[in-house]
Amino acid sequence: MKRYRNGEIWDFEQEVSGEMGGGQKLILGLDGGTTNTVCICMPIIPFTPNHHSPDPPPVYARAVAGCSNHNSVGEIAARETLEQVMAEALSKSGSTRTAVRAVCLAVSGVNHPTDQQRILDWLSFCCFGFDPVHLLSILRDIFPSDVEFFVENDSVAALASGTMGKLHGCVLISGTGTIAYGYTEDGREARASGAGPILGDWGSGYGIAAKALTAVIRASDGRGPQTMLTRTILHELQYSSPDELIGWTYADPSWARIATLVPVVISCAEAGDQVANDILIHAVKELASSVKAVVHRLGLCGKDGNDTFPLVMVGGVLEANRRWDIGKEVISCIAKDFPGMLPIRPKVEPAVGAALLAWNYIIEQSRQDHSEADYN
Amino acid sequence: MKRYRNGEIWDFEQEVSGEMGGGQKLILGLDGGTTNTVCICMPIIPFTPNHHSPDPPPVYARAVAGCSNHNSVGEIAARETLEQVMAEALSKSGSTRTAVRAVCLAVSGVNHPTDQQRILDWLSFCCFGFDPVHLLSILRDIFPSDVEFFVENDSVAALASGTMGKLHGCVLISGTGTIAYGYTEDGREARASGAGPILGDWGSGYGIAAKALTAVIRASDGRGPQTMLTRTILHELQYSSPDELIGWTYADPSWARIATLVPVVISCAEAGDQVANDILIHAVKELASSVKAVVHRLGLCGKDGNDTFPLVMVGGVLEANRRWDIGKEVISCIAKDFPGMLPIRPKVEPAVGAALLAWNYIIEQSRQDHSEADYN
Repeated sequence: MKRYRNGEIWDFEQEVSGEMGGGQKLILGLDGGTTNTVCICMPIIPFTPNHHSPDPPPVYARAVAGCSNHNSVGEIAARETLEQVMAEALSKSGSTRTAVRAVCLAVSGVNHPTDQQRILDWLSFCCFGFDPVHLLSILRDIFPSDVEFFVENDSVAALASGTMGKLHGCVLISGTGTIAYGYTEDGREARASGAGPILGDWGSGYGIAAKALTAVIRASDGRGPQTMLTRTILHELQYSSPDELIGWTYADPSWARIATLVPVVISCAEAGDQVANDILIHAVKELASSVKAVVHRLGLCGKDGNDTFPLVMVGGVLEANRRWDIGKEVISCIAKDFPGMLPIRPKVEPAVGAALLAWNYIIEQSRQDHSEADYN
Repeated sequence: MKRYRNGEIWDFEQEVSGEMGGGQKLILGLDGGTTNTVCICMPIIPFTPNHHSPDPPPVYARAVAGCSNHNSVGEIAARETLEQVMAEALSKSGSTRTAVRAVCLAVSGVNHPTDQQRILDWLSFCCFGFDPVHLLSILRDIFPSDVEFFVENDSVAALASGTMGKLHGCVLISGTGTIAYGYTEDGREARASGAGPILGDWGSGYGIAAKALTAVIRASDGRGPQTMLTRTILHELQYSSPDELIGWTYADPSWARIATLVPVVISCAEAGDQVANDILIHAVKELASSVKAVVHRLGLCGKDGNDTFPLVMVGGVLEANRRWDIGKEVISCIAKDFPGMLPIRPKVEPAVGAALLAWNYIIEQSRQDHSEADYN
C-alpha cells in the first residue's frame, strides 16, 4: 500500500488499529455530486434483502466534503479531498482501511465502458474531474490490494438506492436535469433523456422553469396568453418588467439557478393558472415517456406488459410533495401502460445507493460461492 | 477636436485635406456585429427617396475590422479598432473628418433609452462592449463638434437597410437568433422574440437546429419517430452514434455553431422527412407570430387590418433561397392576416442601413427647414 503524500490524513489509523483485529468488514459509498462529495461507511451484514421493501444495512458514519473537480481546484487538491472524505468516514466509524472490503463511487456522467467517447465528453461534469480509469488508480494507491472498487454512473447509484443495490428496474431522476435509466437482471441497460437542456430534457426542473419564463415573454410580446406566471416570477426575482428576465437569463447560464423557479410554477398551477398547468402536464408526459421508452427497450414489463419491475423516483421535481404532485402524476401516467410497475421513493441518499451496489454484489458473490460449495 | 492618442491613425488627412475644400458632406455607417465591425462611407445626396423601391445613395468606401469588444481586448484596443475602421473608410473615400456630417453606429443589444436596465444587461453583447453613452463620448472626442451621432440597435439598422432609412414598418431577423422589431411614423416601437435561446426563440437558426438535434435524441431513445435527420446530422458532424451529440452540444455552448445545422434540416425536409418538415413549419409559425404580435401592438396594419407597411426580412434563415423557402412561407403566413404587408429583402448590408438612418434623418430635417422657409 503506497502512501504517496499527505500521509497525515491517515494518522488516525494508528490510534484505532488495535481495536479492529477480528472484525467487521466495511463498504465505502461515495457520491460525487455537483456541489459536494458525500462518503458513507456501511458494514457488510449478510442477510437476504427484500428488494421491494428496502431496509438497508445501517450507516456507521457519514462525511461530506466540498465538490472537488480537479479541473477547477487542481489534481492534488482533488485527490486530497477524495482521500479526506473517506478517511473521515472511516475515522468516525472507529475503523481503518484494513477493514474496507469495497469502495463504490457514483459520479455524474460516467457511463457504461462501451461508451468511451461519451465518458470523455462528460468528464468535465464528474465532480472529481478524473476519468474513471484514473479514479481507480488513485483508489488502488490508497487502499490495500484486496479491496474491490466500483465506479458507477450516479443514475445507477440512484437506482440502487431504491432497490437495495440490485440492478434491476428503472430509475427516473428529475432535479435540475432529468434522465431515465434502466437495467435488466441479465445486465442490459438503456437510457432516455439525460441529454441536457439543448437536447430537449423538458421534464427537468430546468425545462419546466425555462418553459415558464418563455410563457412570460410570450405573454408580454403578445404571442401567448396572459398568465399568473408573469406576476409571480417577477415578484420572486424582484423585477418589474418581463424584459428584465432576458438580462437575468443571460447574466448566469447556470441551469440550476433557472430550475429554482419550479416551485413558483407549481404554485401558479395550484392556483388555477392554465399556462402553468399546461407546462406541468407537458413535463409529466415527457417524464413518463422517458420511462416508457426505457421499459419498452429493455422489455422490463415482459411480453404481455404486466411484469413487475421497480421504478425508483429521485430528485426535487418528483419529490416536491405538493398538492400538484408531479411524481404522483408521472406514476399514474406510467401505470396505465405498465400495471406491474412498483414505484419506489428511496429512503436513503445516493452515497448509500453506491455502497448498496457494492454490498449487493458482494452478498450475491458469497451466496453463489455457498451454493457452489453446497453443490460440491 | 481632441486627438487624445494614436494621432497617427489620422495622419492620412494631411495628404487629402487640400482636395476637400468645397465639398461633399458624408455619413459614416457602422455595424458592430458579433464577429466583425463594418464601416461604410456614404455621401449626403438630397433626393426624395422611394421607401419601397430602395436604391440608396452610393457607398464611397467600405472598411472591415475584427470584433472589438473591450471586455475581451481591453478598452484602448477597442477604441483603436473603432477609430481605425472609420479612418480607413474615410481614407478610401479620399476624404477627412471635416467632411463628416453624421456617424451612425448599429450595435447589437442597444435598446430604447427608456429601457436602461436592459441596455446594461445586454452590454456584454455589444460588439464594442461600450455602453451607448460611453460610445458617444468616444465619438465626440474623435470628430469635429458639429458632427451628429446616432447609436442604434442593430434591428433598427436592419429595418433601415430595407426602408431607405425610414423608421416605419417591421423588421424580422432570423439568423442564429431571431427578433421582430417594429416602428411607427409617430415614434412608437415594439419588439417580439429576441429574448435568447432559453426564452423560446424557436424561429431562430439555433431554435431550428436544437429541435432537430432533439428529434435525433428522441428517435434514438425511442421517445419519438425515426427521422432522416439522424443519418444526415451524424454524417454532417462525422459521428456514428446519437449519444455523441450530447458531448458535441456540451463541448461548445456557442449558439452559432448549433445554428450551422439549419441547411441539413432544410435538406431533410426537402427530401420528404416529416420530422424535419414539422420543425420548419413550427419555425415559420413562430416567426410569423412574432411579426403579427408587433404589427398588432403598433397598429401598423391600421384599424381594418389592410394598411400598407413594409416588412423587412433579414438573416440566413430567411434568405436561404432553398426549395423549402422559410422566408417565403413566413411571408405567406403573415399576408393572410395583413394583405397590406410589403415584404422587402434589403439589397444593402446593415452598416449601410445605419448610414441610411442618419441620412434619412438629415434629409427629413432639411426638408422641414425648407418647408418652414417656404411658409415664412
